[in-house]
Amino acid sequence: MKQANRRRFLALGPAVGGALIGCSGEKKQAAEEDGPNRLGKPISEYGERSEFEKARRLRPETKTPEQASSRTPLAEVHGMITPSSLHFERHHAGVPNIDPAKHTLMIHGLVERPLLFSVAELKRLPSVSKIYFIECAGNSGSEWGAKPAPDAQSSHGLVSCSEWTGVPLSLLLEEAGVRKEAQWVIAEGADACKMNRSVPIAKAKEDVLVAYAQNGEAIRPEQGYPLRLVIPGWEGNINVKWLRRLELAEQPAMSRQETSKYTDLEASGKARQFTFVMDAKSLITFPSGGQKLEGPGFYEVRGIAWSGRGKITKVEVSFDAGKNWQSASLQDPVLPMAITRFRAGWRWDGTESTLLSRSTDETGYVQPARAELIAVRGMNSNYHYNGVHGWKVETTGAVSQAVQPA
Amino acid sequence: MKQANRRRFLALGPAVGGALIGCSGEKKQAAEEDGPNRLGKPISEYGERSEFEKARRLRPETKTPEQASSRTPLAEVHGMITPSSLHFERHHAGVPNIDPAKHTLMIHGLVERPLLFSVAELKRLPSVSKIYFIECAGNSGSEWGAKPAPDAQSSHGLVSCSEWTGVPLSLLLEEAGVRKEAQWVIAEGADACKMNRSVPIAKAKEDVLVAYAQNGEAIRPEQGYPLRLVIPGWEGNINVKWLRRLELAEQPAMSRQETSKYTDLEASGKARQFTFVMDAKSLITFPSGGQKLEGPGFYEVRGIAWSGRGKITKVEVSFDAGKNWQSASLQDPVLPMAITRFRAGWRWDGTESTLLSRSTDETGYVQPARAELIAVRGMNSNYHYNGVHGWKVETTGAVSQAVQPA
Repeated sequence: MKQANRRRFLALGPAVGGALIGCSGEKKQAAEEDGPNRLGKPISEYGERSEFEKARRLRPETKTPEQASSRTPLAEVHGMITPSSLHFERHHAGVPNIDPAKHTLMIHGLVERPLLFSVAELKRLPSVSKIYFIECAGNSGSEWGAKPAPDAQSSHGLVSCSEWTGVPLSLLLEEAGVRKEAQWVIAEGADACKMNRSVPIAKAKEDVLVAYAQNGEAIRPEQGYPLRLVIPGWEGNINVKWLRRLELAEQPAMSRQETSKYTDLEASGKARQFTFVMDAKSLITFPSGGQKLEGPGFYEVRGIAWSGRGKITKVEVSFDAGKNWQSASLQDPVLPMAITRFRAGWRWDGTESTLLSRSTDETGYVQPARAELIAVRGMNSNYHYNGVHGWKVETTGAVSQAVQPA
Repeated sequence: MKQANRRRFLALGPAVGGALIGCSGEKKQAAEEDGPNRLGKPISEYGERSEFEKARRLRPETKTPEQASSRTPLAEVHGMITPSSLHFERHHAGVPNIDPAKHTLMIHGLVERPLLFSVAELKRLPSVSKIYFIECAGNSGSEWGAKPAPDAQSSHGLVSCSEWTGVPLSLLLEEAGVRKEAQWVIAEGADACKMNRSVPIAKAKEDVLVAYAQNGEAIRPEQGYPLRLVIPGWEGNINVKWLRRLELAEQPAMSRQETSKYTDLEASGKARQFTFVMDAKSLITFPSGGQKLEGPGFYEVRGIAWSGRGKITKVEVSFDAGKNWQSASLQDPVLPMAITRFRAGWRWDGTESTLLSRSTDETGYVQPARAELIAVRGMNSNYHYNGVHGWKVETTGAVSQAVQPA
């Protein structure tokens, strides 16, 4: 519809079954464009995206881009897998350039047999491949404030989802022989700040991966090349990148990233510490802030839902600011601790409309309304915002602002 | 182990439960490498892989690289999803550089309402995301000959697997109104040769996608940007790229690619035509041709299995040239018409060993031995080779040659 000069000779007729009625009101009369008639590019060794594709991670204006985050363009990605090139970033001392032939992983502390693995040695061991989301605890932190972020990338772009391949940490711990007094695994990265976080031993033995591959190839440098910890469903920061040490200890490290950061004050002033799990959340990515609908008619409303506690079991959407809700369809396979794509058909009548989404996970937990969240958490938090969220569609079709219903 | 000079001070001890015994025979005495101690690279808009990663598609020596194929480095990829940059290619007139704002899809011929869609219009419609392999009918065609290809990429690299997002073709056909005499859908690409193939109407209405996204972002140019047909489980050539026309017809087009090519002569001289489905196959990717084991001990044998007829239900592996077989573990989720990763632990004793794999799909079909395949198909075929295959490990650890047991 952007090419007004294009002659259209075909009409988009009434839908069989009504699925598409209203997709295009006007008669189309346009000549089909001819494709190119000369030889295209030859085969190549490593492909690139089309020059017409411009989706980019969002970078803030900052004087310290080594200690910053970039955000996935959620309104421009599809399905469950986030392209590795667009996976959000959060670095504390920049991305180290590590030669995997020189990198090692040490397992030490309260173990029977301290171990040192090369990357090649780890790759010989039993492995698994799992699709998991990783979400920064600070994702949608903007929504705690009075002025919600204007688009999906700004508000929720600190979540991405990949197929991770690596060695179960449980296997490495079994090999090292964990002493019974060990209650924590302190994971340390090889970045300049040697960022570290403490993982409770129960989770470490449950489903944590020492991952070396992401979406079929080696983990990307920004995601921890050559090794990262993947801790399903837990806040991004604890999924330690450029992993070089795992120390078994009686106590957590109480490191900077788990005391000064990644804690929240409750209304009482008491700090919530070790808020590992990312609770159920959802986001409508189409239509979303900054987009514009071309006119009344059929649209497929789409979004993503995820929970750090397991599978998403339901996503409800409302097209009238929460008066009525309906279940969206969930794209299978619905996997635990992975992004689940949801979709619902919507026939926009051209009136101002507020679209909302609300997810439920397999524990029965329902994504809370903003007021419910604040009643429990107070207003001093920076992290772990997961309130119901949506977008207002104006009569012009402009998706003008984020909505957080009370 | 490659850094002989590295001091090692940690010993890889005996495994708890025996899982890892033999992973490393010698005592390790090495200092842990220190990571970099200065700031790394800043956040970025679109990530790239590490400079240390060199996996590449294999290109043949050819004077016509626009009419050629490149192959996925199967021994260097992990899990189920093939990185888009490494997805195999097969072009007949090169990769066109298409502006999606000017591209259209026409549905015409024996329909009630001819339709013309812009890419933006297609993206408004109900969509699905599905993980499917695409395999060239010529994959492992080398194995028909007396001299099998030397490595996994050369022999089987014309198969890849992606998460595809797009509109069900059934929906578009419903909208167009298929006349009852229409038995075929002739799909045509926008490449210079306007490559076309004919799809039976039953399959077109069943599970075919008009896809616009691959692994979360727009389909890569080499894979048909901005639109390709994805026909689950069917030979790659019919998954028409740069899709621009779908013509409903009473008869197939009998085009070059379905008469001169993509047919096989049986022993009688009769041509097999319309051999759409890719039957069950499997391949051990580690250890595989060109690799070298570092010495006796534990290895995880890994590979991929797939079937155009549904889910893989079993992969058996043999470490003794087929005398004994055991079931490999299958990575969940096992999805129909997708690559399934299989794994089996193996303790190599240092003797010459022949490793084989054999897959079974949900129809009960078992990947045939070479002799079984030839008994049915004769020796005049170029396409659709799916015989049991494996690799010989020499006493040196060198994986020296492909094996096709009779």
